[in-house]
Amino acid sequence: MRIPGALMAAEMDEQPAVLARLIERREDIVALVRRHLPDPLRGLVLVARGSSDHAAVYGRYVMEYAAGLPVALAAPSLHTLYGARVDYRGYLAVAISQSGRTPEIVTVLEQLKRAGAAGVAVTNETASPLADAADAVIDLEAGEERAVPATKTFTAQLAAFAFLAEALVPAPWEPDAWPLVPEAVAAVLANRAPAEKVAAAVGNSRGLIAVGRGFLFGIALETALKLKETSSILAQGYSAADLRHGPIAVIEQAFPVIAFVLPGPAQRDMEDLGRLLVARGAQLFRVGPGGELPVPSNLPEALAAFPATVRAQQVAHALALHRGLDPDRPEGLTKVTPTA
Amino acid sequence: MRIPGALMAAEMDEQPAVLARLIERREDIVALVRRHLPDPLRGLVLVARGSSDHAAVYGRYVMEYAAGLPVALAAPSLHTLYGARVDYRGYLAVAISQSGRTPEIVTVLEQLKRAGAAGVAVTNETASPLADAADAVIDLEAGEERAVPATKTFTAQLAAFAFLAEALVPAPWEPDAWPLVPEAVAAVLANRAPAEKVAAAVGNSRGLIAVGRGFLFGIALETALKLKETSSILAQGYSAADLRHGPIAVIEQAFPVIAFVLPGPAQRDMEDLGRLLVARGAQLFRVGPGGELPVPSNLPEALAAFPATVRAQQVAHALALHRGLDPDRPEGLTKVTPTA
Repeated sequence: MRIPGALMAAEMDEQPAVLARLIERREDIVALVRRHLPDPLRGLVLVARGSSDHAAVYGRYVMEYAAGLPVALAAPSLHTLYGARVDYRGYLAVAISQSGRTPEIVTVLEQLKRAGAAGVAVTNETASPLADAADAVIDLEAGEERAVPATKTFTAQLAAFAFLAEALVPAPWEPDAWPLVPEAVAAVLANRAPAEKVAAAVGNSRGLIAVGRGFLFGIALETALKLKETSSILAQGYSAADLRHGPIAVIEQAFPVIAFVLPGPAQRDMEDLGRLLVARGAQLFRVGPGGELPVPSNLPEALAAFPATVRAQQVAHALALHRGLDPDRPEGLTKVTPTA
Repeated sequence: MRIPGALMAAEMDEQPAVLARLIERREDIVALVRRHLPDPLRGLVLVARGSSDHAAVYGRYVMEYAAGLPVALAAPSLHTLYGARVDYRGYLAVAISQSGRTPEIVTVLEQLKRAGAAGVAVTNETASPLADAADAVIDLEAGEERAVPATKTFTAQLAAFAFLAEALVPAPWEPDAWPLVPEAVAAVLANRAPAEKVAAAVGNSRGLIAVGRGFLFGIALETALKLKETSSILAQGYSAADLRHGPIAVIEQAFPVIAFVLPGPAQRDMEDLGRLLVARGAQLFRVGPGGELPVPSNLPEALAAFPATVRAQQVAHALALHRGLDPDRPEGLTKVTPTA
């Protein structure tokens, strides 16, 4: 008999091992990327959809910080529908797809390469059209992902982007912090109680907001997507600043908000926002050291994104079960989405 | 006595005149931008929040198409919080703020200029810190906006971005189409019945999705924001492709969707999506020629964004009134949001 959510839970539990294997290959991946960097490097462009796009938002922040060069998220339709002719000479294009088989992502990478970019693929499938289209492949080696909501693939993608940032120098962390990452993720996985408590408090709320800033903005977007996929809740992800510019109007009494409040440059702004939200009546669930959804405090902010992501995965998993849904197989979703 | 929504309605009605005045100054604005373009131009970066950020998404598509160069939306926190050192020599930075007084936007423009960019401000206030910080100012001359939800400022910003695209050549429309724009907007404003019908059908739905693609993606984002601001509905904006990659899971029986289905390269994809949504039970309201929210059919897609935006504004206004809310003064929002 299939147990609802068993696949997603098993894949979540694989994350410390998947990350540890990637971290072992860290120096090789950094060297691979450096061999394919255009010289001079003019800029970077990222191509992704869905969860991979949220990993790309994280990548955008850490890579732009490291490279000191603008990093853009590609607008795929300009290339697939509008026939835009864009000059990407001197650019590194990074295309991200778990399966390597989303036609749109492959097409855009091919077009960016024709426009002059060097192309790196980040994928779980080295035998895929995306890997074939790229100059270099970062193989996530996360193993087959069978639950529809991406979990181990997502955190593996975050690691790939962090390594890409290290290739660009200087990354906003010290490399000796890496061994702490799988440990922190394992510590989060070892205790499901906080997420179950939050899921029970969220209950049948129709909506939810996930909010982060800077390095945690992409994690807030991914949290909202994971909750939508597993639990059909109207979850939306925002940056702290964007939330204040209008969307905060939807916050009413008891409205649930998951806020990423981690030590670092964005902490004070997130704490200010938290007070504002509580004053409006929100139920505030903080992901961070000492929060309702605790994570270890011994990581630099950009690497704390890993255990913070896993806490949010636990909430998505627990909320689906709380609602009698099967998080492994959200209604109407498939593992590979054939957008073109 | 104040009539709820009277301010927003009056400002919506000013749009044909505001756009006509801007169109009269079109050639001067194009020439002004050209005088400030770096030579060679390496790329473009846009700085905005809230509604202005959605105008910037529109701007990103039309400018990237025209310039043949990557256009990025800035990540403000990298500059205001993280102290990233980024090289913007040869870039044109465009900062957009109705009031010209959002501190974050001013700070980021100043930092991009210090990093080497040329800076253009798009604002309603030429006597403002943002105008002071810029090398050149595109004055929207939209007049004071008193309702909290931006309407005439937003369509004026769209026009400014279209002119910026024209300065970069080739824009995806013929300039002789411009006189049709205020006429099309006036035609939409002259008939509120379709929006009122849609508002009644949406009724007390807790959520709504607005979806567009390509040139209409930014308009879908703005539609969702306007609905959130005026009506506290959990409205979310997506591109057609992003919606398929997960968020479609929230669509259940009678879930309202506003879809921008306009003649052009994205039309077939939007029609396919529409069929998929209806098969899932969505209530589909199409903005486009012959749709439930009709707009004139005589405009190229990128310029059809203007009347399409106004149709969506009408729905936001009508839905607030339908729910007994005052669209002029959404709870807890102010006209200038002081993010830093």
